[in-house]
Amino acid sequence: MNSYRKELWFNIPARRGFINITPEVQEALRDSGIQEGLLLVNAMHITASVFINDDEPGLHADYETWLEQLAPHAPTGRYRHNLTGEDNADAHLKRQVMGREVVVAVTQGKLDFGPWEQIFYGEFDGGRRKRVLIKIIGE
Amino acid sequence: MNSYRKELWFNIPARRGFINITPEVQEALRDSGIQEGLLLVNAMHITASVFINDDEPGLHADYETWLEQLAPHAPTGRYRHNLTGEDNADAHLKRQVMGREVVVAVTQGKLDFGPWEQIFYGEFDGGRRKRVLIKIIGE
Amino acid sequence: MNSYRKELWFNIPARRGFINITPEVQEALRDSGIQEGLLLVNAMHITASVFINDDEPGLHADYETWLEQLAPHAPTGRYRHNLTGEDNADAHLKRQVMGREVVVAVTQGKLDFGPWEQIFYGEFDGGRRKRVLIKIIGE
Repeated sequence: MNSYRKELWFNIPARRGFINITPEVQEALRDSGIQEGLLLVNAMHITASVFINDDEPGLHADYETWLEQLAPHAPTGRYRHNLTGEDNADAHLKRQVMGREVVVAVTQGKLDFGPWEQIFYGEFDGGRRKRVLIKIIGE
Repeated sequence: MNSYRKELWFNIPARRGFINITPEVQEALRDSGIQEGLLLVNAMHITASVFINDDEPGLHADYETWLEQLAPHAPTGRYRHNLTGEDNADAHLKRQVMGREVVVAVTQGKLDFGPWEQIFYGEFDGGRRKRVLIKIIGE
Repeated sequence: MNSYRKELWFNIPARRGFINITPEVQEALRDSGIQEGLLLVNAMHITASVFINDDEPGLHADYETWLEQLAPHAPTGRYRHNLTGEDNADAHLKRQVMGREVVVAVTQGKLDFGPWEQIFYGEFDGGRRKRVLIKIIGE
């Protein structure tokens, strides 16, 4: 069994945003040389997500609106977490809806994807450097 | 390390529905011959889910009602994604709540499950052929 | 490839609660001797979650309030699942928001975590004994 590890770094200036990281993940998979196995991609920070969905800007605008309805940022005083001096409690909630990680099958050296699957980094508390972890195991 | 791959195909006539796919996953695990490892089951389409919960029709009706409250299908014009000509933006949102994939432990050649765990395919934009991927790695 | 399996047992007297299980997972990883691989931690019951977020009591209070807004426990008669004699339909819904499982990279014998990542057991229908499964594969 072989394993491979890589970190991706992000610094999104806005509070929230989505970035398609599929090319970076594909490059990591090529670097690994692994042909058959499982690939994990996870946010290493707890106010961010990694998820798989469609690379369509209208949909991303819908996610933004919808997540803000489910877990509004303001008024920040509605969240006890923000009594710690943070203003990012909503980001911890939004991340639970969108998820921390994805696990992807590796088949014949490729991400074993359906026709529209793309991997995104979802930032809910930007303006600082954050990391995503790629870990691949297989042969 | 061994690996095994299988696709399951579905065509659910209604817009939404849940199907218990545990027997098909168990059959794939038997075919694989893998005794110890990890098993991934994921929707290959971005308006569908694979999740683990109870095989109880009342609960599935509750999921349907609840997801429709969290992310209503209509009016379809409320979603920017639907400006592309689609009417399935709600399906992309519902799928994030229910999840894309499950990872299950394989122990002594079986799905290592608690007493009520069952694997479901969740369709949120039916009326077309869609796939689920099973990938198993181990020994 | 090696594999390791361990169950953790819980009996949370209240209906809902969060427990930091990171030390128990780290101990299991040490016991396994696995240096490089993937680690799965999942709830074996369908009204409980395993998730990764911050060990901050204010945030946990926010999760409690928020999940109760998204999927209220009462009136229990609003859920068809509760016609079976259960009163825990809301717990099956809350668990979908928070997730069943996490998959964590194992690197150099450690949980490959960002600075604030901690693993939690989330109970949404307590007062009974329940299990969490740890499965590790690697070398």
